[in-house]
Amino acid sequence: MFNSIGTILRLTTFGESHGAAIGGVLDGFPAGIEVDENFIQSELNKRKPGQSSITTQRKEEDKVQFLSGIFNGKTTGASIGFQILNTNAKSQDYSHLQQAFRPNHADFTYTQKYGNYDYRGGGRTSARETANWVVAGAMAKLLLQRLGPPIKFTTYTDSVGPISLPRDFNQSDINPADINANEVRCPHAPTAAAMIQEIKEVRKAGDTIGGTVFCKISNVPVGIGEPIFHKLHAQLAHAMLSINACKGIEFGDGFESTSKRGSEFNDLFSSPFSQKQPTKTNHSGGIQGGISNGMPIEFRVAFKPVATLMQSQPSINADFEATEIQGKGRHDPCVVPRAVPIVEAMAAFVLADYLMIQPIRKL
Amino acid sequence: MFNSIGTILRLTTFGESHGAAIGGVLDGFPAGIEVDENFIQSELNKRKPGQSSITTQRKEEDKVQFLSGIFNGKTTGASIGFQILNTNAKSQDYSHLQQAFRPNHADFTYTQKYGNYDYRGGGRTSARETANWVVAGAMAKLLLQRLGPPIKFTTYTDSVGPISLPRDFNQSDINPADINANEVRCPHAPTAAAMIQEIKEVRKAGDTIGGTVFCKISNVPVGIGEPIFHKLHAQLAHAMLSINACKGIEFGDGFESTSKRGSEFNDLFSSPFSQKQPTKTNHSGGIQGGISNGMPIEFRVAFKPVATLMQSQPSINADFEATEIQGKGRHDPCVVPRAVPIVEAMAAFVLADYLMIQPIRKL
Amino acid sequence: MFNSIGTILRLTTFGESHGAAIGGVLDGFPAGIEVDENFIQSELNKRKPGQSSITTQRKEEDKVQFLSGIFNGKTTGASIGFQILNTNAKSQDYSHLQQAFRPNHADFTYTQKYGNYDYRGGGRTSARETANWVVAGAMAKLLLQRLGPPIKFTTYTDSVGPISLPRDFNQSDINPADINANEVRCPHAPTAAAMIQEIKEVRKAGDTIGGTVFCKISNVPVGIGEPIFHKLHAQLAHAMLSINACKGIEFGDGFESTSKRGSEFNDLFSSPFSQKQPTKTNHSGGIQGGISNGMPIEFRVAFKPVATLMQSQPSINADFEATEIQGKGRHDPCVVPRAVPIVEAMAAFVLADYLMIQPIRKL
Amino acid sequence: MFNSIGTILRLTTFGESHGAAIGGVLDGFPAGIEVDENFIQSELNKRKPGQSSITTQRKEEDKVQFLSGIFNGKTTGASIGFQILNTNAKSQDYSHLQQAFRPNHADFTYTQKYGNYDYRGGGRTSARETANWVVAGAMAKLLLQRLGPPIKFTTYTDSVGPISLPRDFNQSDINPADINANEVRCPHAPTAAAMIQEIKEVRKAGDTIGGTVFCKISNVPVGIGEPIFHKLHAQLAHAMLSINACKGIEFGDGFESTSKRGSEFNDLFSSPFSQKQPTKTNHSGGIQGGISNGMPIEFRVAFKPVATLMQSQPSINADFEATEIQGKGRHDPCVVPRAVPIVEAMAAFVLADYLMIQPIRKL
Repeated sequence: MFNSIGTILRLTTFGESHGAAIGGVLDGFPAGIEVDENFIQSELNKRKPGQSSITTQRKEEDKVQFLSGIFNGKTTGASIGFQILNTNAKSQDYSHLQQAFRPNHADFTYTQKYGNYDYRGGGRTSARETANWVVAGAMAKLLLQRLGPPIKFTTYTDSVGPISLPRDFNQSDINPADINANEVRCPHAPTAAAMIQEIKEVRKAGDTIGGTVFCKISNVPVGIGEPIFHKLHAQLAHAMLSINACKGIEFGDGFESTSKRGSEFNDLFSSPFSQKQPTKTNHSGGIQGGISNGMPIEFRVAFKPVATLMQSQPSINADFEATEIQGKGRHDPCVVPRAVPIVEAMAAFVLADYLMIQPIRKL
Repeated sequence: MFNSIGTILRLTTFGESHGAAIGGVLDGFPAGIEVDENFIQSELNKRKPGQSSITTQRKEEDKVQFLSGIFNGKTTGASIGFQILNTNAKSQDYSHLQQAFRPNHADFTYTQKYGNYDYRGGGRTSARETANWVVAGAMAKLLLQRLGPPIKFTTYTDSVGPISLPRDFNQSDINPADINANEVRCPHAPTAAAMIQEIKEVRKAGDTIGGTVFCKISNVPVGIGEPIFHKLHAQLAHAMLSINACKGIEFGDGFESTSKRGSEFNDLFSSPFSQKQPTKTNHSGGIQGGISNGMPIEFRVAFKPVATLMQSQPSINADFEATEIQGKGRHDPCVVPRAVPIVEAMAAFVLADYLMIQPIRKL
Repeated sequence: MFNSIGTILRLTTFGESHGAAIGGVLDGFPAGIEVDENFIQSELNKRKPGQSSITTQRKEEDKVQFLSGIFNGKTTGASIGFQILNTNAKSQDYSHLQQAFRPNHADFTYTQKYGNYDYRGGGRTSARETANWVVAGAMAKLLLQRLGPPIKFTTYTDSVGPISLPRDFNQSDINPADINANEVRCPHAPTAAAMIQEIKEVRKAGDTIGGTVFCKISNVPVGIGEPIFHKLHAQLAHAMLSINACKGIEFGDGFESTSKRGSEFNDLFSSPFSQKQPTKTNHSGGIQGGISNGMPIEFRVAFKPVATLMQSQPSINADFEATEIQGKGRHDPCVVPRAVPIVEAMAAFVLADYLMIQPIRKL
Repeated sequence: MFNSIGTILRLTTFGESHGAAIGGVLDGFPAGIEVDENFIQSELNKRKPGQSSITTQRKEEDKVQFLSGIFNGKTTGASIGFQILNTNAKSQDYSHLQQAFRPNHADFTYTQKYGNYDYRGGGRTSARETANWVVAGAMAKLLLQRLGPPIKFTTYTDSVGPISLPRDFNQSDINPADINANEVRCPHAPTAAAMIQEIKEVRKAGDTIGGTVFCKISNVPVGIGEPIFHKLHAQLAHAMLSINACKGIEFGDGFESTSKRGSEFNDLFSSPFSQKQPTKTNHSGGIQGGISNGMPIEFRVAFKPVATLMQSQPSINADFEATEIQGKGRHDPCVVPRAVPIVEAMAAFVLADYLMIQPIRKL
């Protein structure tokens, strides 16, 4: 329940940062899909730690092992068990967490809720868990390739701290290669350079910084989404807010739309009407009434600065007594570059699940 | 599935704007709770149409009828069926919708998805559905009163179009009476007056306007929320994004936090530590790792301008041919004042469901 | 949750025997299905009370009212709300139940669980609830007619007390008309006569009697059912055991198969192989590994004698003190004849739900 | 979904007989429970293959490895991942299954459903999967020990083929040691000897045989179970019918009750009433209206003879052409002795899940 997501396509996960392994079970995946393990691994590599100078220095191969559900290179329809071994856990780096909670970290809330806590590397609260999601998202992409039109994801870093893409940046003709051309995954080279600079300064200061990720899902057929409590954007919001450090989401013009009038905001239908581009503008982000309208689905996800600082902070211990905590362990100064593949994986997963439900919504 | 929300406490709904009735089934509600029908009705009255000069003029009594699950004034543990009759449907006002889709309205997406559509008053896409949610939310409040500490909701209009609460407005000492003192449900009288003025102008122009709702949930015990895919804020986001016209949500400092450094953003523990106020600040909005930290839960919800305008707009008909559509029927120029009780109802519902799960999370 | 059944096609119900109404919400039903209300009503009539001399004398029209989800005679894809008013409740007949629990009745267990109980007519424990299921089952049949091959149900009374169909009765060429030709719904006229005689005697004695219902589902395509915890027969068992007074179920040769050897029991493939009749025999009742094999699905459901007797029985009151209880109210001396349409409705519902999941199980 | 069972306590599984490993994720398990791994292993040993002369000769250690959710010997509240490596797979024994389907085996239905099939050792259809369930059941037992009264399970072999316990066998004073005193897990020594003899003869003949398992759950508090579609016996039936080769279940007097009159069948309350033994008899098997009445819950589960015979049978190949199949591989001649711990594990799992829901059913 709590560690599961999806309706027909359903992912259930387990694993702590410094346990033996993390992993999951992917259920409801159709039979007959060829599993390109190189593709899965390349998706995982986008998220893995230690990949660049601006991310955590923990070195993990993040090699996924499929344990079931695949035979002779194809899915069999059985549940797909998988695991990723934890090979580079340095638990001793975290022994100080027995003595003090990190401010703004789930250290505190988990300990209060459960009465105990696997503090090593953040245990279950670690973003390491999201490697499982990237596996599921990569599998979802393989499935989407077989379920009709080639749904396409364009996901990138929109801002890092105060550094944003220029207001007039044209997101409609991004080359995917431009996103992966730099460590920060921002498709606009000068902005990317400034973001990298910012992250390096922040790291040097023993500090952390927030940012936003933008995601566009193209070629979504009209009619995807289910009414009332299974709305497409509500499920996407649920998936995105499940990502560590996420504090908000907005679709289309989002919060900006709240200061607009309907006559400016409404997306008029294309004229003559085109199935390829149903509306002239896309202020509403491709969804109306929880159902896709054939325009790209667009949303922006907000990430707060990472809680763990490489500087001393006042804190409390398990007895609620005042103490100091000094950051140790290996952490990202900014989650955003590594959040990009996670956002995309969850978007792919949510979409694939919807397409599984879709075939008999009308007769 | 699609028309249900909640895990143990579960609401399933039905109903179109101009059908015989709307209603629902509230499942998992414990036995032995006294049902104060006056209270339920007073909650519904906050949402009902025709209540003021700035809302739709549809006149509905919105009288809830409980059909089961209550005996001698108390819940029995059986599922609680309820309905609200539609008494003031003027379906002829909507016959023009057979000929043209409203831009940015679910008219279009529903018709494409289902191949047919109950266009009368928006059918299932109508925000009239949310009256069901207010019933469930009111019941949830009755339940919360019996489940330990008195969880308290403070929900109000934060902005209407360009009119916002002053930056220095102190939300911590709002008097609930101030919220309901005006039609727009904004606790700051001068701002409320400006908001009302704005809505009246918008209406006169045949236009509509967006806005934001702020919600604070106080006295939530530490430890509420479940890991990974059942995080407290992810479930709240799902519930809020289910509300008609909602385009975004942010928790605590939300999007603003993305430009902050960890050293500014982190909420330091109170010193000496106080269970009543665990942290000195509340930038993170009361949730860490998906679990409440004992501080108030705070979030802001974005509503786009209503799609239906009382002015002519270019559109298309069911054959995708260009046409004009002229707004008819009775609509709100701004959903925000009536969204306030809906946001609060859904917040109460989500919290009550979590408290039902909570008792045996540790032993 | 507790009052819901189904995965994509999902029924949620409410209602007490003597409340205002019973009813439900049918969710996930595809758009575009014509709803033949006469057919729905004819199905309900098979279950309704007061239909013959051997059933309860409560007179209910059991007229279903659809409140949503249907427009211009067709389903819209929205959730389908419906209700059946309770028009012939005689609650005064049940006031004695305030003073004593009926032995073997849920009177006792509900009161212990919930601390209170709507004793009027058995409240939520009444089999009146199953009228909701017959509505859902009839809708499921309409859906099945559109989902490929014409799945067919043959359901009848197999035994009443000691009176069983003859061992050599050939169930394979039953004429459906023969089932409905008599009050007891047994397709073999002489056996039916004996069963009716038995029920009349039992009633005269103020007693009740059990029996079994047999159900055969023909034309089920091979491959229906899902592995491990969503097996076709496990879901059918769950549905059948949900019916009031049901104490057991067996598939194919069932309990008899336990004394057989594999060499007698195994169903050999037809030779030459025929898709129409994949195996020569059907000892396993059409399911292997939880998945249909293309043979008819066959099962038998056991119903205990009704708990409420029209004779005096020793009992206890709410204070656990010894007392006497004398049967009052209107009850069936044997549930089996009216259970036949309920078993069939649930079988149709379960099958329809599986067919909704089926389209993308392989690619 | 399909590979998951439970509501709050939820098990999701994966694994094929000859894949790298089988395993699962146990979700919703409370924090703070000491995990006695010796106990878990001792439960697994009861089910493991190769334990005696009358079971399959496959030798597996069936050593469970916990991968997450346990820290310093106690559960943390995080999902518990576990796996059991397949160490003794002899896949070459199964290559003949590429050429022919075993009659009455899921070989055929899986292949038809999924278009492919991991035939090695039966793949996902293998009863090896149930080792995962025994792990979950053992964990459930640890949980039950902490959730109030000591719920007790007495589960044994009731019949093997034509050999049954004597009619007058008194099941109420069974010594658990007597059950495990013999290979067949029948508490009556002379019957056990006859059963073992029967199985040996069946094996020698290259044949298989069915049987029944009886389960009694004692000390279940009154009030466990949820109304309508979450009835205690319906959930138990679902769990039991999920076990490989299970063809039926009956509660209390079950099928025998169908020939009884209410006046014989009704269980009269004890007088004076005793909470320890609420009724004088237990014909209804401890459940009324889906809710426990405080008496032991009793049911009997039917297992058909194993499909795989060690003799030649006519069959078909993947092209539906007639062929012969000769049994190979290592199989049980009778599943019943090894089904005993599986039935008990699932009963424990179902009960534990109900107790997790129970705390706030009334207020």
